[in-house]
Amino acid sequence: MALSPLAPAAFPELPVVDGVTFAAGAAGVRYKGRTDVMLAILAPGSAVAGVFTRSATRSAPVLDCQAKIGGDPSGPAAILVNSGNSNAFTGRNGVEAVEALTTAVEQVTGVAKARVFTASTGVIGEPLPYDRITAKLSELSDGQSAEKIADAARAIMTTDTFPKGAAATVDVNGKPVRIAGIAKGSGMIAPDMATMLVYIFTDGLIEQGALQSLLSGINDRTFNCITVDSDTSTSDSLIMGATGASGIDVTGSDDFAQALHGIMLDLAHQVVRDGEGATKFVTISVTGAADDADARKVAMAIANSPLVKTAIAGQDANWGRVVMAVGKSGAAADRDKLSIRFGDITVAENGWRAPNYSEDAASAYMKNPELTIGVDLGLGDGQCTVWTCDLTHGYIDINADYRS
Amino acid sequence: MALSPLAPAAFPELPVVDGVTFAAGAAGVRYKGRTDVMLAILAPGSAVAGVFTRSATRSAPVLDCQAKIGGDPSGPAAILVNSGNSNAFTGRNGVEAVEALTTAVEQVTGVAKARVFTASTGVIGEPLPYDRITAKLSELSDGQSAEKIADAARAIMTTDTFPKGAAATVDVNGKPVRIAGIAKGSGMIAPDMATMLVYIFTDGLIEQGALQSLLSGINDRTFNCITVDSDTSTSDSLIMGATGASGIDVTGSDDFAQALHGIMLDLAHQVVRDGEGATKFVTISVTGAADDADARKVAMAIANSPLVKTAIAGQDANWGRVVMAVGKSGAAADRDKLSIRFGDITVAENGWRAPNYSEDAASAYMKNPELTIGVDLGLGDGQCTVWTCDLTHGYIDINADYRS
Repeated sequence: MALSPLAPAAFPELPVVDGVTFAAGAAGVRYKGRTDVMLAILAPGSAVAGVFTRSATRSAPVLDCQAKIGGDPSGPAAILVNSGNSNAFTGRNGVEAVEALTTAVEQVTGVAKARVFTASTGVIGEPLPYDRITAKLSELSDGQSAEKIADAARAIMTTDTFPKGAAATVDVNGKPVRIAGIAKGSGMIAPDMATMLVYIFTDGLIEQGALQSLLSGINDRTFNCITVDSDTSTSDSLIMGATGASGIDVTGSDDFAQALHGIMLDLAHQVVRDGEGATKFVTISVTGAADDADARKVAMAIANSPLVKTAIAGQDANWGRVVMAVGKSGAAADRDKLSIRFGDITVAENGWRAPNYSEDAASAYMKNPELTIGVDLGLGDGQCTVWTCDLTHGYIDINADYRS
Repeated sequence: MALSPLAPAAFPELPVVDGVTFAAGAAGVRYKGRTDVMLAILAPGSAVAGVFTRSATRSAPVLDCQAKIGGDPSGPAAILVNSGNSNAFTGRNGVEAVEALTTAVEQVTGVAKARVFTASTGVIGEPLPYDRITAKLSELSDGQSAEKIADAARAIMTTDTFPKGAAATVDVNGKPVRIAGIAKGSGMIAPDMATMLVYIFTDGLIEQGALQSLLSGINDRTFNCITVDSDTSTSDSLIMGATGASGIDVTGSDDFAQALHGIMLDLAHQVVRDGEGATKFVTISVTGAADDADARKVAMAIANSPLVKTAIAGQDANWGRVVMAVGKSGAAADRDKLSIRFGDITVAENGWRAPNYSEDAASAYMKNPELTIGVDLGLGDGQCTVWTCDLTHGYIDINADYRS
């Protein structure tokens, strides 16, 4: 698979986060010649928060994680993730697999089963050969290192063309707190509550309830604002662990919240940049809606429209399709108050083409790899920004025969 | 544009419907070397019913038609349609264009402006050069013939690869009543209230209110049950004219309603068969939902899923993506009661892969040009059937540079 043309120049330098260690291995669940499993271990007392897909057909590991979030944090915690098989819609076998994996982690690492969070990502509906993973647990336990987070990011990739990471060191009351996160995701991306697989770690000190509230709020403005193809995964999971190893209380810190927001937005953007077949990174900014919910409807209708996305792929300034998407969104809209901008160019306003509209200028703008489509509905103060990519032949190539 | 591989063998023989005549011409609105405008004239007293898009950005001709449906039926009526430009999001110019066209039809044909229904289909947002159409009205008026309905069907095509028609002669109380319809549509197909452009004519006798009620009801089970790409047009219009020329009262006739349903379903299926880039005609049949509304949500979530549609294009029996679509639909669903069939093959049941599942059998089935995906939710009596096509490189080819 060729590297996405929108990929960052390099995987970022991620700082060591005190209190968490990682290891990755090659269990051969589905892929050959690469790592496909990662194990992270968090220090006793770590707060663990999570946000998960709301899919009615969510996977066995998602259900298990949801049941465990918020439990007694006194012991250590572990996160075990495999790629190549999602253990979704695998019935009794799926539940057995989670039970077997979490039991084996407890036996090998001493982390209580109730604090072992698993995730699986890949093909849906095939029984997970979990024995291949349990066979690797001793190796993963022995190999734990605070410096292997990049290996973990690589092990969880599926159709991703690059590993995804982001980090910050933030001063809280004059002392440094570290946050580092990794993510995977490329297709089946239209998060509803959470998205893809994302793991974020900090050595800041914060209680589970406060961490959960912070994480859910930022999630609504980051991962829940991206879409590649309007399809929502059965495995979406975002888990954050706060080890408290720095001894610095970050509860209520605006600086911490802002840094965390930056990391989550960065990871969310990286998922869009690695959207299957993507050649354009597109920001859809909607203002002037009756309320924020309507703005979101309009932004997502544009971001998910196959006709808007193919026009962008063809570098065609076909703003009429943006009008179409506004019209079908279900949000309150008045044709004659609507205005549309491509970058800084106003292409339509007051119910028709802008008086100074230049097809040449609009077409030239569309050649940029990063585009902004601005829509003002002229009705109220509601606003929403979402991020998406274009729909290309590459998407069809990747998905017309994903399983073989 | 190559003919869709799913096209019918030939355009059907459409019977003459007493009381309505047609003519088509080449106005050069956008296309060269083909007809692009059609005028139909209906006898005095004809009942005219219509169903239109609910898009918030619907076109000037749609708004004009909606205002006129249900008006005084004593005089004759006319339908004027052009292709190549949709006169949508054209502001004041759009209203002027409709005014100029309907006034010109009144002057040339004597049909009162209040009974002239216009429609435009094609690119959104470009001012309609309506003078090119008015210049052709004398020719279209002089050329009226009861036998030119096929010419009318060809003149309204845009990205369609074949003209669409369907007809029936139905016995009502032992006497023959004729119904004939034409349609256009290929992309931007996810009707919400009506769809594309469809014109149906009958010589049956029925009052406007009864005709409207019949048409709206059948529309919900035909055109509102198809989707090509989830994008809803700004121009969707379905108009039916009943001339009454047969003198046979069809009000309340089950035979008439059934024949009309057959024609509307046939035309709806033809639109899917001509879906942009389509190589597969797919029936999605959902049963066992909590109610019909939930069944529709599930059926449309499957029919609009890019991942399901690309798997079908690749002839990949990837039923896990059907599970995903059920999960994201928002309908009540219980993973462990869900069963999925591809044709007669049960691929999944009771929350996982069917015990006798054979990848070879499922893959062989996927090679058929016509496929049925059956989903039973195991919860209640709700059901819905919708029709769609696959998502292929052809769709990207057509839409990545539609305007040039």
